Amino acid sequence: MNMKIEELKQLFDNQLFKELENYSDSLLSSSISYLLKIGGKRLRPVLCLAGNQLFNGDLNTAMPSALALEFFHNFTLMHDDIMDEAETRRGKPTVHTKFDENTAILGGDLMMIKAYEYLSKSPSDLFSNLFNRFNTTAEEVCIGQEMDMDFEDRNDVSEEEYIQMISLKTSVLFGTSLELGARTARCSPKDANSIYNFGKAMGISFQLIDDYLDSFGNAETFGKRIGGDIIQNKKTYLMIKSLNNLNANEKSELENWISLKEFEEEDKIKAVKELYQIAGADKDIIDLSKHYNKIAIEELNKINTSNKTLKEELIKLSESLLKRVE
Amino acid sequence: MNMKIEELKQLFDNQLFKELENYSDSLLSSSISYLLKIGGKRLRPVLCLAGNQLFNGDLNTAMPSALALEFFHNFTLMHDDIMDEAETRRGKPTVHTKFDENTAILGGDLMMIKAYEYLSKSPSDLFSNLFNRFNTTAEEVCIGQEMDMDFEDRNDVSEEEYIQMISLKTSVLFGTSLELGARTARCSPKDANSIYNFGKAMGISFQLIDDYLDSFGNAETFGKRIGGDIIQNKKTYLMIKSLNNLNANEKSELENWISLKEFEEEDKIKAVKELYQIAGADKDIIDLSKHYNKIAIEELNKINTSNKTLKEELIKLSESLLKRVE
Repeated sequence: MNMKIEELKQLFDNQLFKELENYSDSLLSSSISYLLKIGGKRLRPVLCLAGNQLFNGDLNTAMPSALALEFFHNFTLMHDDIMDEAETRRGKPTVHTKFDENTAILGGDLMMIKAYEYLSKSPSDLFSNLFNRFNTTAEEVCIGQEMDMDFEDRNDVSEEEYIQMISLKTSVLFGTSLELGARTARCSPKDANSIYNFGKAMGISFQLIDDYLDSFGNAETFGKRIGGDIIQNKKTYLMIKSLNNLNANEKSELENWISLKEFEEEDKIKAVKELYQIAGADKDIIDLSKHYNKIAIEELNKINTSNKTLKEELIKLSESLLKRVE
Repeated sequence: MNMKIEELKQLFDNQLFKELENYSDSLLSSSISYLLKIGGKRLRPVLCLAGNQLFNGDLNTAMPSALALEFFHNFTLMHDDIMDEAETRRGKPTVHTKFDENTAILGGDLMMIKAYEYLSKSPSDLFSNLFNRFNTTAEEVCIGQEMDMDFEDRNDVSEEEYIQMISLKTSVLFGTSLELGARTARCSPKDANSIYNFGKAMGISFQLIDDYLDSFGNAETFGKRIGGDIIQNKKTYLMIKSLNNLNANEKSELENWISLKEFEEEDKIKAVKELYQIAGADKDIIDLSKHYNKIAIEELNKINTSNKTLKEELIKLSESLLKRVE
C-alpha cells in the first residue's frame, strides 16, 4: 500500500492527538499540548514517515522517531521563542506569552525528555543507532541557535557562515528526519546518506524562503509578525547580501538602522526592506533557495526506491516550499 | 582494589576536567564549563561510581553514567536558577547572572543533550536499560520542579505533598545515580532496587537538611544567600509544619508575611525564622531528616556486597549530610 504525504500527515496527527490525551493533568503538560495543537506543518515527522515508506518499511517502526522529532522540534520552538522574545507563533500567543516564562523553560525541558522517551520505543536493535543520529543532530541544532544569536551583534557575518548556521539550526533536522525513517526501514548506508543530503539541502532551501517571508511575507499566512528579523538585526542572507551589494551611502544607511537603539518599529522595517530591494537581495535569496532545491532533487534521485509515486511527491513537496513566495 | 569515596571523587574530577578541555570554543561551552568548574560536591557521580564498586564493577563502565548524571544535574541547576531568579550558586554568580539568560537557557539545553551523549558511551548491551532508568528519572525531576513552583502560590500544601515533591525533584536522582552504577556492575535486580531505595531515602534526608540550611545556615558555608526560600514563599517542611503548629495569632502573622507584596527582605527573613522556631519546625525538620536517614541505612543493609569498607563509608556519607547542621 503506497501512502501519500497527506495521508502520512493524517496518520501522524491521529497518533499525536492520541498521545496528547495524556497531556492535561498539569500546567507543563498543558503547555506542551497547547503548542503541539496550534498546528504546524508536521514537516519533520512526515519526512520521517516518508523516509520509511520510500524503503518499504513498517510505519509502526518509524512512528516513535516521528513523535520524537516533532517533540524535539517544538521543544526548540518553545525555548527559541523565549530567547527571541516572540509574542506569536502560528498566529497564536507563544507559550511564554500565554502561560509564563518559567512554564516555557520547564515545559520545553520536559518536552525534550519526552522526545527521548518516544525515541526509545523504536525497535530495540535499531535504538542505539537512531539515538546517536538523533543526539548528534540535537547538539547541532543548539549550536546553530547559538550562532544565530551571536550573529545579532556582528556586522561581518559571511554568506558561508550564514549557510552553516541555518544548516545546523534547521536543515540537519530535516535530513535526520528522513534518515531516521529510512533507517527504521533498514535501508542501505548509501541510501541513508543520500536521503539525509536531500533533507538537508531541502532544509536550507526552506529556511532561505522562511527568511524571505519574515521580511516580505504576509503576516496572516506566515503566522508570525512580519519584520521580526529586521527588528532583531538578524543577519539573514537578505541582510548580508545587502551589506555586500549596496553602495557606500546606502550601506551606511543600513548600518545606521542596525545601530539605532530607539526607533519606530514600522519605520525601521519599511526602510530596511527598501534597502534590501535596492540591493537586489530579495531576488538573490530566492535564487539561492532554488539552487539548494536543485541540489536536493539531485540527491533524491540517487536513492534506490521502488516507490516512485512517493519520490515524485517529495520532489513536489520540496518545490512547494519554494512556492510559498508566490 | 577498594577505592574510598574521596578517591572516587578525585577520579571523577580528573575525568570531568579532562572532558571540559573540549568546552572552551563558544559562549555556550564556556557557560557549561563555568558552572561545572565552580565546584559542587559531585554527590551524584560519586554515588554512581560507589554503586559500581559495591558490586565489584569495572569503574570505566560506570564513568559514562557518572558524567551523564553530573551534566544532567547541572543542567537542572542552570535552568532552576533562572526560574528562581537566584543570583549566586556555590558562592559564585549564577550562569544567567554572569552571562545572560539566553545563554543559560540554551547552555542548559546543550548540557542536557551532552548528558545523553555521555550516557550513550555505556557498554552497548546495558545502554537501553540505563537509558530508560535515566530518562524516567529526568522526567520525574522536571515534574518535581513544577510541583515546587506550584506550591509557591498555595498555602495548603500537605506534608505528604511536600515529601513527594522533594522525592521527585531531588531524591530519585540520588537513587538512580547509585542504581546506574550498580547496574554497570551487573548487580541483581533485588540489589538494584535496594540501592535505589537507599539513595532515594538519603536524598530526602539531604533535601530536608538543605531546606533547614536555606533558613538557618551560614551563607558562607552554604554557598547561597540565606532566606531565599522565605522570600520566595517556598512551601518547605519548615513552612508547612509552622502553618500547622502555630496558634491562630501566630499563624495569621505568618500568612501575612506570605501575602505581603512589598517588604524589607531582611525583616521578612528574621520574622519568619522566629515563627519557625516558635512552631518548633526547625527541630521537627531535623528529626524528619534523621528518620529518612535511618530508612536509608536499613535499605543499604539489605544489599549483598563484599565491599564492607565502602558500605561503611556510604553510611558515614549519609550521616555526614545530616551533620552539616552542626
